[in-house]
Amino acid sequence: MSERVTLSLDELRSLIRNCLIANGCDEANADAITDNMSSAEASGSASHGIFRLPGYVASLRSGKVDGKADPQPEQIAPGVLRIDNRNGFAPLAIDRSRTAFVDLVKSQGIAALSINNSHHFAVLWIEVEKIVEQGLCALAMTCHLPYVAPTGGNKPFFSTNPIAFGWPRKDKPPMVFDMATSEMARGEIMLAARDGHSVPASAGVDADGNPTTDPNEILKGAQSPFGGHKGSAIAMMVELLACGLIGDLFSYETAQIDNGDGGPARGGELIIAMDPKRFGAEDYLDHTDRFFKELAKQPGVRLPGDRRYKTRVETPQTGVSIPLALRDTVLELTG
Amino acid sequence: MSERVTLSLDELRSLIRNCLIANGCDEANADAITDNMSSAEASGSASHGIFRLPGYVASLRSGKVDGKADPQPEQIAPGVLRIDNRNGFAPLAIDRSRTAFVDLVKSQGIAALSINNSHHFAVLWIEVEKIVEQGLCALAMTCHLPYVAPTGGNKPFFSTNPIAFGWPRKDKPPMVFDMATSEMARGEIMLAARDGHSVPASAGVDADGNPTTDPNEILKGAQSPFGGHKGSAIAMMVELLACGLIGDLFSYETAQIDNGDGGPARGGELIIAMDPKRFGAEDYLDHTDRFFKELAKQPGVRLPGDRRYKTRVETPQTGVSIPLALRDTVLELTG
Repeated sequence: MSERVTLSLDELRSLIRNCLIANGCDEANADAITDNMSSAEASGSASHGIFRLPGYVASLRSGKVDGKADPQPEQIAPGVLRIDNRNGFAPLAIDRSRTAFVDLVKSQGIAALSINNSHHFAVLWIEVEKIVEQGLCALAMTCHLPYVAPTGGNKPFFSTNPIAFGWPRKDKPPMVFDMATSEMARGEIMLAARDGHSVPASAGVDADGNPTTDPNEILKGAQSPFGGHKGSAIAMMVELLACGLIGDLFSYETAQIDNGDGGPARGGELIIAMDPKRFGAEDYLDHTDRFFKELAKQPGVRLPGDRRYKTRVETPQTGVSIPLALRDTVLELTG
Repeated sequence: MSERVTLSLDELRSLIRNCLIANGCDEANADAITDNMSSAEASGSASHGIFRLPGYVASLRSGKVDGKADPQPEQIAPGVLRIDNRNGFAPLAIDRSRTAFVDLVKSQGIAALSINNSHHFAVLWIEVEKIVEQGLCALAMTCHLPYVAPTGGNKPFFSTNPIAFGWPRKDKPPMVFDMATSEMARGEIMLAARDGHSVPASAGVDADGNPTTDPNEILKGAQSPFGGHKGSAIAMMVELLACGLIGDLFSYETAQIDNGDGGPARGGELIIAMDPKRFGAEDYLDHTDRFFKELAKQPGVRLPGDRRYKTRVETPQTGVSIPLALRDTVLELTG
């Protein structure tokens, strides 16, 4: 195992923020990305933590993304809030939209947030969790570059098209799941490639369409969707909602304009949220807590997010461990 | 193979409608169910065609369902339409809500339809397709009795929790998929049990939690969700949206009140629909048609619904073939 270094959360935040500022982010963007990335790291989501920072930097240096984008949300229909992210990174657009979006959901019962011309490179659960903490339920989805072949096909066409869904709980952190619609998260395959591990053959195919356990071959070929043709249908739905519905780029269109700098590609994100109280479900927190308790009675069943919350309680004391080489790369990129 | 009989669509409709009327449906309910069931049969969805009619009759005879329910939709929030189905079958409630719901979606950009105290025993794609034909995209989900163990668990807890999603197409029928979140549709397992076929071991477990290829053992044990823990998370989301959000019965709660007559259980359904035009995607039909064309270029990829549309064009000429014994059962139930 490669050498690692333990950082306090404050040290981690400074490391991330300094690097972003040094590479052309303004303070608002640097703060939003730092919050997102350090939250991921503090919750054990290493594949979307500081591991992604060199990608952000690459996109700032190549000029693909505007680190000083200044997006503002606008209401474009009674139930639709839209924010044109003006070619910026997603975290600031999401932070800037949240209050107006939560208010809209509470007044309408259901509303959608369309984030356009944006570069998303982060976990989805963070934006869902912050909305769900307001007593709402929320569903988020986004696309990226084409990495996944539809079931039956042999070429990358879908992105790993993640879906995150969250439900509020009484006196507990929300239940939030965040899953790639690929059999494996691309971040996990990238980590396996970096660390020289193999992956299950269900994870993807090589450039000739043959199943392989070598993550490097999958990165040259195509990933597979989870759950066969049903997962493939879900991945297609994500493309239609997070790209087609909101008039943004499909993953295959993104590929045609991306400069290949390794950073986040341009595209859209859709968040749909609902207020159970406006659906007449006044006792929804008690009702669904009974459901979660019944579910957790089965052996081997763990509620999504439980491990994140456990880790999040620990890391303020323990700090987080990252590869030493990654820390050094970030310092070098900071200059 | 058991003996079969071919019926014209008109003969099929009369057979269904007469049986429903003879067993206590009023004309409005009988017409709505007949439309739904004959459309399923005419499109090749045999598992949700006349095969389900004896279940409808059982629920009318046991008094579990009111065949004369007279539901009316009401708007309970700016973006939420609710219809209390007053213990009736789902098709009439859905037909009665459609116009108001489509209008609401077009004015709001996004809206939800909550169908409560309802008995759903049909394919979901029909209600989705009729909404999507108005130029909208729509997502529907519902629950039923617990048949599926969460991944890691060993007891039925989720229903087969189907999801249907549809997207409008230019000069073509909509793209609509309709999938159980179980590895196999319960209807398929029921058909396999009826016909003495085995099923893949991934379909479920016996009463002791062991994988089995015997559909009868799975019907006594538990089905498995599709796609492992990711499919299990999706199944949980369906419970939370189609039951928790709208204040209706979770599948495990439905089981506590169902009389076991084999007919449709009581519960809710949620439909979310969006108008791409209100999201600013004026050219969405052209944009997404290019997407579908790119997708269909891959070998082995077939768009969901294509087989249904092909069958639907043929059956007005060919009629539909059903088991002779089923036809006789229906005639006997009609008296």
